[in-house]
Amino acid sequence: MQRKSLKTDRCPVARTLDLIGEWWSLLILRDAFRGKKRFSEFQQSLGLAKNVLSARLRKLVDNGILEIVPASDGSAYHEYVLTEKGNSLNTILVSLRQWGEANLFKPGEKYPTLVDRKCSQPVKPLELRSKDGRLLKAKDVQLLR
Amino acid sequence: MQRKSLKTDRCPVARTLDLIGEWWSLLILRDAFRGKKRFSEFQQSLGLAKNVLSARLRKLVDNGILEIVPASDGSAYHEYVLTEKGNSLNTILVSLRQWGEANLFKPGEKYPTLVDRKCSQPVKPLELRSKDGRLLKAKDVQLLR
Repeated sequence: MQRKSLKTDRCPVARTLDLIGEWWSLLILRDAFRGKKRFSEFQQSLGLAKNVLSARLRKLVDNGILEIVPASDGSAYHEYVLTEKGNSLNTILVSLRQWGEANLFKPGEKYPTLVDRKCSQPVKPLELRSKDGRLLKAKDVQLLR
Repeated sequence: MQRKSLKTDRCPVARTLDLIGEWWSLLILRDAFRGKKRFSEFQQSLGLAKNVLSARLRKLVDNGILEIVPASDGSAYHEYVLTEKGNSLNTILVSLRQWGEANLFKPGEKYPTLVDRKCSQPVKPLELRSKDGRLLKAKDVQLLR
């Protein structure tokens, strides 16, 4: 269903969703974080129509989240790599991952684990904290307009 | 575009997106975290067709993210409230919010601020940390399969 653009909405959540809050865009970004770079790699991973993938990649490039660079192997292909702005989306992908791990797997069911490269230990769950470091739950926060 | 279900995908990100990774669902959840509870409140806020809203709410209820309770004012209406599983989605909403704040607003442009109820100070940005507490960037982590 088509919807109004929230690009200039006052709410930061709405603006982010306007840009990346579409199923395919988030899966493309997940793949980019997993090291996929080429059109054919995204297409093979996601199995979506070329015109849809092409449009989604273009939107991410136009908005400075991915950039197009020459292929790393010197071939004629080009590659899509995350910009600094794109890399800062990592927290969103990690939050989606950790909620899924905690809520959508059966006990004992395996999933790929996100680990710290340095010591190969699983990363800590993301935590919302106050300015002075207290752990905050949803009920502990409010929006000031 | 319709896509294959990722409900049983090995990737936790994909499973989460299968459930809530749809524009409207995330906006409904944002509104639920902002205290909206009634069908009419969601409809007025989001301006989406009743049948679409109804289907999205049903999916969230069926998956244990929202639950239907009698109206808090004793009227004949019922209300949709976040379950514990639903409340734990707060980290995802906060990560979407904070990325939007940092990347999609002009300098000086105002937005509603998420604050700690206790001291009315803005919450800290979510941070990805290693088991021993080091701050981790996207390049510092990898997936173990």
